[in-house]
Amino acid sequence: SDAYSLLILPGDGIGPEVMAEVVKVIDWFQANRGMSFDVAHGLVGGASYDAHGTPLTDETMARAQAVDAVLLGAVGGPKYDVLDFSVKPERGLLRLRKEMDLFANLRPAQCFDALADFSSLKREVVAGLDILIVRELTSGVYFGEPRGIHSDDNNPDNEGGRVGINTQRYTSGEIRRVARSAFELARKRGNKVCSMEKANVMESGILWREEVQWVHDNEYPDVELSHMYADNGAMQLVRAPRQFDVIVTDNLFGDILSDAAAMLTGSLGMLPSASLGAPMTNGRPKALYEPVHGSAPDIAGQGKANPIACILSFAMALRYSFNEGEAAETLERAVEKVLADGVRTADLMGPEGGTPVSTSQMGDRIIAAL
Amino acid sequence: SDAYSLLILPGDGIGPEVMAEVVKVIDWFQANRGMSFDVAHGLVGGASYDAHGTPLTDETMARAQAVDAVLLGAVGGPKYDVLDFSVKPERGLLRLRKEMDLFANLRPAQCFDALADFSSLKREVVAGLDILIVRELTSGVYFGEPRGIHSDDNNPDNEGGRVGINTQRYTSGEIRRVARSAFELARKRGNKVCSMEKANVMESGILWREEVQWVHDNEYPDVELSHMYADNGAMQLVRAPRQFDVIVTDNLFGDILSDAAAMLTGSLGMLPSASLGAPMTNGRPKALYEPVHGSAPDIAGQGKANPIACILSFAMALRYSFNEGEAAETLERAVEKVLADGVRTADLMGPEGGTPVSTSQMGDRIIAAL
Ligand SMILES: CC(C)[C@H](C(=O)O)[C@@H](O)C(=O)O
Ligand SMILES: CC(C)[C@H](C(=O)O)[C@@H](O)C(=O)O
Repeated sequence: SDAYSLLILPGDGIGPEVMAEVVKVIDWFQANRGMSFDVAHGLVGGASYDAHGTPLTDETMARAQAVDAVLLGAVGGPKYDVLDFSVKPERGLLRLRKEMDLFANLRPAQCFDALADFSSLKREVVAGLDILIVRELTSGVYFGEPRGIHSDDNNPDNEGGRVGINTQRYTSGEIRRVARSAFELARKRGNKVCSMEKANVMESGILWREEVQWVHDNEYPDVELSHMYADNGAMQLVRAPRQFDVIVTDNLFGDILSDAAAMLTGSLGMLPSASLGAPMTNGRPKALYEPVHGSAPDIAGQGKANPIACILSFAMALRYSFNEGEAAETLERAVEKVLADGVRTADLMGPEGGTPVSTSQMGDRIIAAL
Repeated sequence: SDAYSLLILPGDGIGPEVMAEVVKVIDWFQANRGMSFDVAHGLVGGASYDAHGTPLTDETMARAQAVDAVLLGAVGGPKYDVLDFSVKPERGLLRLRKEMDLFANLRPAQCFDALADFSSLKREVVAGLDILIVRELTSGVYFGEPRGIHSDDNNPDNEGGRVGINTQRYTSGEIRRVARSAFELARKRGNKVCSMEKANVMESGILWREEVQWVHDNEYPDVELSHMYADNGAMQLVRAPRQFDVIVTDNLFGDILSDAAAMLTGSLGMLPSASLGAPMTNGRPKALYEPVHGSAPDIAGQGKANPIACILSFAMALRYSFNEGEAAETLERAVEKVLADGVRTADLMGPEGGTPVSTSQMGDRIIAAL
């Protein structure tokens, strides 16, 4: 069939609430744009642990492998802090990323004009900000072996007698493929890539720098490439974020730098992400889409959550999985219109006021604007 | 003798210029406060490589071990980018930190009132900011073994055929001792510690969290302790930095988060740091003091550099090495006065103007204010 297949994994906290609004959007595109979606639902994270004792069942994993795109809400919550590391909600998400081999995590940090005053940064520093962080997502210290906590009893100098180990490990091939993603994306944007690592203190950073340079010199000499130490990168993101176009970096640096970048925009509840892997036999990349914000357990179940990040993640799915760029833009423009009209979930309500709406009212407004 | 012994290592770039102003300050305290300093000079970083083919000679290392305090300017520069990893300027600094066992790196991020408008953040977000980041400095991924770049030729899936490895490794003892430093410092400040790691994805982060909690529960139950994932920490630093008092974190997270925090203040040229180890036989801790800013090769040798961070690092030496808290405050007040008078090096010159001064004029003004 020509239907686009989706697996929806709402997860924990506000995940189910915001995902419910995405379902409305999907229905709208089916009813009004002749698209056909084949939608399955499943559990991930704490929700899956509660039902099955594991943050992701093998069955759900297999379904994720088979669909065109996975839409994920959020995972985690204080309720699960006591769980063993191996069954923590996060392990479900990490397993999806790893087994689907979603090596390129695209995190746009965009400052929406109507919301520029929400940033803790000065308007003139962030207005019009539009950068894209490409984070490596399947390797590095998140997955490297050996790892674990061991006893170190034979070491009399080690008060406490334990040692904790993780391994930062990158192959040249892993670096090259995510570098290619970054260069490809840059060509469709500002044509500039800045690669970040700590090559001054870590050999894995030296390899990172050399391989990104190699891909540039051999395959993308037309794209402007620079290198920056990650600590300086964090500084520059705070000082003058608009100097960047595309940033490419590893799994751990990408986690931290993309969160800092997201916060710069003042629009955390607005930011989507896409995690992409290699093309499947139908030509579509393995793909998972999720909002950058977390599960926000403090406001879960109260109709306060902002569904826009999750809805814009679906727009990314339209663009990157289904090549429906025009539909994606239609959806993005509807979101912009609703914001320009002053419609505001609680997180977006500033001193200048606006029309306060609940999670589901925000979804309805976006549908109405479509 | 009762003299305080110092080893001055100006290093590279603007290091020598800013250190020259510290020497004036040292002389002032000798002439006017009856203090006696025994001052030796040496080379580190690229300057040492140029002279001796190594970023730190064994002789300088031995001298650093013997003095009460090392004052360091900055290391590194593009000239040395081509050098092999083992002789890069940074290795000199890392060797000092490691062999002197300077496990607690104190990085205050303070927003000076006269300079609050320099921050890219809104004045109301950063005015009065005064946080202290305590970064573990002798372990973690900076020093863990195994490390290096190896060939991976037998792996047909690895295009490029290489692999880069670093090891994040912490013992419980290493975590406990830096946690104690953080709790001690917090007691003299806001009595609050926030510990940051990625316990949701790294076992070394779990160990970190458990050991910090152990030290708290057994030795510092009176200090308020919270834990935060490092990515959220980066966000919160951008969103609302004044929520923090003391932050304790590992070597790599500390590198990145402290640089982001420094940039928040808009006063990078103003921020000092202290790196402290265990007490020596004379009761003073092993100690190295350095400005947070780097070697700034682009402005080196032009009299443009701001010497205040380096001078305030000497104030930290007075406080932490020599227990001369009053003298430290005298010096800090002199710096504040000069700033309030509108005296400005180039980096501090904003739209409201001020009296432009060179590096050495700034030093002279501070001496005059003493
Ligand atoms: C939930 C957690 C495992 C995850 C990560 O660390 O990658 C999150 O912080 C993210 O950035 O997607
Ligand atoms: C120069 C470099 C080795 C150093 C580090 O990474 O620790 C610097 O960035 C710092 O923060 O002191």
